[in-house]
Amino acid sequence: MTRAPRYTQTVANLPATVPFIGPEAMQRSAGKPFATRLGANESVYGPSPRVIDAIAAAGPDVWMYGDAEAFDLRNALAKHHNLAIDNIVVGSGIDGLLGTVIRLLVAPGDPVVTSAGAYPTFAYHVAANGGTLHTVPYSGDHEDPKALVAKARETRAKIVYIANPDNPMGSWHSAATIQDMIKDLPDDCVLALDEAYIDLAPAGAAPLFDMGDPRILRFRTFSKAHGLAGLRVGYAIGAATTIRMFDTIRDHFGVGRLAQSAALAAVQDVEWLRQVKAKVATARTELSAIASENGLAALPSATNFVTIDCGRDGAFARAVLSGLLARGIFARMPGVAPLDRCIRVSCGRADDHALFATALSETLRELGNADVT
Amino acid sequence: MTRAPRYTQTVANLPATVPFIGPEAMQRSAGKPFATRLGANESVYGPSPRVIDAIAAAGPDVWMYGDAEAFDLRNALAKHHNLAIDNIVVGSGIDGLLGTVIRLLVAPGDPVVTSAGAYPTFAYHVAANGGTLHTVPYSGDHEDPKALVAKARETRAKIVYIANPDNPMGSWHSAATIQDMIKDLPDDCVLALDEAYIDLAPAGAAPLFDMGDPRILRFRTFSKAHGLAGLRVGYAIGAATTIRMFDTIRDHFGVGRLAQSAALAAVQDVEWLRQVKAKVATARTELSAIASENGLAALPSATNFVTIDCGRDGAFARAVLSGLLARGIFARMPGVAPLDRCIRVSCGRADDHALFATALSETLRELGNADVT
Repeated sequence: MTRAPRYTQTVANLPATVPFIGPEAMQRSAGKPFATRLGANESVYGPSPRVIDAIAAAGPDVWMYGDAEAFDLRNALAKHHNLAIDNIVVGSGIDGLLGTVIRLLVAPGDPVVTSAGAYPTFAYHVAANGGTLHTVPYSGDHEDPKALVAKARETRAKIVYIANPDNPMGSWHSAATIQDMIKDLPDDCVLALDEAYIDLAPAGAAPLFDMGDPRILRFRTFSKAHGLAGLRVGYAIGAATTIRMFDTIRDHFGVGRLAQSAALAAVQDVEWLRQVKAKVATARTELSAIASENGLAALPSATNFVTIDCGRDGAFARAVLSGLLARGIFARMPGVAPLDRCIRVSCGRADDHALFATALSETLRELGNADVT
Repeated sequence: MTRAPRYTQTVANLPATVPFIGPEAMQRSAGKPFATRLGANESVYGPSPRVIDAIAAAGPDVWMYGDAEAFDLRNALAKHHNLAIDNIVVGSGIDGLLGTVIRLLVAPGDPVVTSAGAYPTFAYHVAANGGTLHTVPYSGDHEDPKALVAKARETRAKIVYIANPDNPMGSWHSAATIQDMIKDLPDDCVLALDEAYIDLAPAGAAPLFDMGDPRILRFRTFSKAHGLAGLRVGYAIGAATTIRMFDTIRDHFGVGRLAQSAALAAVQDVEWLRQVKAKVATARTELSAIASENGLAALPSATNFVTIDCGRDGAFARAVLSGLLARGIFARMPGVAPLDRCIRVSCGRADDHALFATALSETLRELGNADVT
């Protein structure tokens, strides 16, 4: 017999793809660093100075495992949201938490619903568990709550996913729209409500917390507004009976001591968050202006990025993105039509925007004279 | 219908247990901090000063996601071990990596083999995936390679787990014994060789690397000798064809930028590792002497802890452990007979050992006058 591991049937059928090629891998392929990094919706404004201090202070103690219950952090989050500690579970970013909730619910063949073109890592985790993914299209550059719920009902989905605000389009729904979605949700379907960007959304996008409904899980992160993408801390909020289930399979010591200390310092620095929100608002205005100056239309954004409609088809937008990348601008674009007529640019500092503006204008000038379809 | 998520059958059948109650949770229950922390086999000698500097330096950059390919770290590890980068995958500690490899191989009902009383988190992950765990007993306070392989063959196991050196007994096998185990391993069974403590073992415990065998996965960590338990970085070493499979399901951005930087600094500080090994050797001698002075026998140790035979049954050892805990000494003990006649004490500094010596002697004096069975 040949010496070989016997992978599960699910794993043996998986394609050798990854959700994203990261910017470092792109730089290694290109053989040079990016001039500016506006493709991963990171917070270029950095973490709070208090968080930077907390990280330095935590270094000598890093020989100790973190608290498996993340008690201090969950306690601070509970106070911040006016919830009980049992309504919160901490995990290694929303990616890690989505992976866990899918493992809790999805066995091979089980149906799951999302939007075509929504967050690829959610789809990746569904595939990793052998789930069957059903999609509905966006509607007017928004995810379509009514269509998502209808599809969940039709397919008897175990999970329906929506991001509010949305990535990659930057659009958002009002709390009332999300509430209506919950009202229509099948009784045995979990709503995975990804609120990674909620800190940057206009008031009125987040529904009130209802900890009596075991079907609703809301995902928050320190990777966006708080500027801690490189630490991997996120949390899920839900009914205590649902949150408790994470404990049956999660990696209990997976969020380390240092990450917990840093996140705790971030929760406590409300003033830094206010400053980041102001900087993001300014940056959105600047990026929209750059789009207009180049004859393109920026979509309204409730996030720390701006999605820019390049006005033609996916091939054209891909050519724009390639032109930007060739000029050292790391940006991304949606992967599915008709969203892929757009590119997606993260909020930067003034110098990032100046580089982007020059590269965009050069790229469009070049493409104006070329056949890109 | 009642509103309720539909968990997978595997999850619905899981007990509400966790692999370990962490020391912070124990302190909260007790209402006071431990006087000394010798229960989690952490490295009280801390991380290298160069690592502490690297952590502080990485703070301001933590707004960026880590490299999903962990290229620099894997490259340094490959050089260190004289392997290719494709032989290494980085994950959030051995716990995280074990979870991933079990998900790759174990579907509900699939057989897996380990030793009764070996690392509980391995068994936890097997249960989380619905695997059927078969165990063999220790033999003379060692895991029993021949019995493990025989059981793997008998049950057609997909994975057989062994730790060398072993936790919780501190014992170890020679490389030749592990090589013999591999020679007898069924062709379609993966050997998960947990080498968390290998940096602290005598020369000759680690077999040469054979990257031509797709069945062998070796697990290493920065949590023990390197003193980075609170950062969550480990790695698996294996044939490129096997290592590549991790990419189909792992959390690609799960090991953050800061953790990668710190681990890279740790790999490069060979002198610190040498100093830690010397301190651990001294500490083992001290802990053995304390055991002897109290009429107990310390087992030989190839790790950063010493397992002490309390000379009677599990009930007595549990009483000793309780006495230590009541005196503020955090230690642990094996969970399964006959291993549970022992307690397990991590290597500490002189002041940790002094506190332990006093508490042990008081506890034994107290128990000498009591009926503990």
